[in-house]
Amino acid sequence: MVDAPIGIFDSGFGGLTVARAIVDVLPNEDVIYLGDTARAPYGPRPIHEVREYTLQCLDALTQRGVKAIVIACNTGSSAALRDARERYDVPIIDVIIPAAMRAAASSRNGLVGVACTQATATSRSYNDALAASEVSLTTSVCPRFVELVEQGVTTGPEVMELAEEYLANQKAAGVDTLILGCTHYPLLSGVIGHVMGERVSLVSSAAECARAAFATLVRAGLLREQPHRAELQFFTTGDPARFEGLGRRLMGGFVRGVCQLDVG
Amino acid sequence: MVDAPIGIFDSGFGGLTVARAIVDVLPNEDVIYLGDTARAPYGPRPIHEVREYTLQCLDALTQRGVKAIVIACNTGSSAALRDARERYDVPIIDVIIPAAMRAAASSRNGLVGVACTQATATSRSYNDALAASEVSLTTSVCPRFVELVEQGVTTGPEVMELAEEYLANQKAAGVDTLILGCTHYPLLSGVIGHVMGERVSLVSSAAECARAAFATLVRAGLLREQPHRAELQFFTTGDPARFEGLGRRLMGGFVRGVCQLDVG
Repeated sequence: MVDAPIGIFDSGFGGLTVARAIVDVLPNEDVIYLGDTARAPYGPRPIHEVREYTLQCLDALTQRGVKAIVIACNTGSSAALRDARERYDVPIIDVIIPAAMRAAASSRNGLVGVACTQATATSRSYNDALAASEVSLTTSVCPRFVELVEQGVTTGPEVMELAEEYLANQKAAGVDTLILGCTHYPLLSGVIGHVMGERVSLVSSAAECARAAFATLVRAGLLREQPHRAELQFFTTGDPARFEGLGRRLMGGFVRGVCQLDVG
Repeated sequence: MVDAPIGIFDSGFGGLTVARAIVDVLPNEDVIYLGDTARAPYGPRPIHEVREYTLQCLDALTQRGVKAIVIACNTGSSAALRDARERYDVPIIDVIIPAAMRAAASSRNGLVGVACTQATATSRSYNDALAASEVSLTTSVCPRFVELVEQGVTTGPEVMELAEEYLANQKAAGVDTLILGCTHYPLLSGVIGHVMGERVSLVSSAAECARAAFATLVRAGLLREQPHRAELQFFTTGDPARFEGLGRRLMGGFVRGVCQLDVG
């Protein structure tokens, strides 16, 4: 079981930031990444549909014998985290809880923000994750960020103006910590950091999720301790060439050998 | 000038974590990376020698017309940051100040730690950077971490035991924020995060330096705003094949086409 791969699921490409962070800190671990790009984005879909699709994808990962599952998709996590915990015997790691914990632990003034998609805002997942903390949460919906990141536009006047507009409520609220509540957003940390000003700390769900994955494997006795040349497998429900092209543009040579997979 | 590349200097490979973070947030920017691997590690050398070598390397970068310089090397920054500011007309960004600022801004209890090499500890650069803050700093010297990262060993019992040993003083001091004060250490954030416990926030000098680079370019009017297929050039004073091999192992396909360069 220790030698089994880690399964990482996302609706599309954003989870690649999580996958790369996991590979960085867990270089001995084999990884299977599945992006449901044929049905992405999940954001506009009703929650029951997102749940159905997510569990289909997680079934496909568990059928390949993964020892742990990372739901690297805020929308999928909102819809199916609890179902997944009941359905599978392996540890489930999500992107929301680790980022919320980090924000609560590092905010000094108790004023935390989250920048996210409409679907994540509607789910109130970050509000729930922080409900028992002393933190007051301000949410910014940033509808065009994902599209811009996927076009490779992460600097320049358009994204800067949008960031000013989307994050104006965070600046007015005086947050000292901002959660990048979508796995695409670490690629926007330059522009978001600049707009928020250097006093505001950014919390990357990718980095925090990778750290949580490491700790979870250790606690479960599932850490692969011997040096091993890890195998990374990438599956998409959509077009492998498009996935590989966009993956490489966003994440460098890390993404290669993408295969098509049917899960529906 | 806006179209000129960013120059990134490190004594060796660790600065590649900084370079990748910069490429992530500034994908339109051409980058020239220079690693002085023929003379690395700088840690054991006297400060006047480190200063001489660092300025030789920065001269080589500025001769290639860079619009900004990132000193992605804690030891080099300790020795030559002020000299570089006097010597060159372009903005200089280092790894120490951004990480120190982030730690001071995100510690809740005022107890901050830094994990670093012996050379960085001796320089007291982080102590100086935090002297005017309300933070109390605890330093852990972690002599074997760089060697282990360069061997690809970032998990497993050996590194876990070393981390327990090196960081015992941080746990005893009760720090709530730990600066990864060496550019190799982001690759150890899994094990360091696990050993410190989930309540402790980690500050990555790579991520904070990239954010500072973005903000510096914007303030200086040097941000390349139009989409552009960035050119990444890697130079080493040592063996290009070894640099490329180790670079790829640590950082994936991001590192390619490494050339040899004489700077002495």
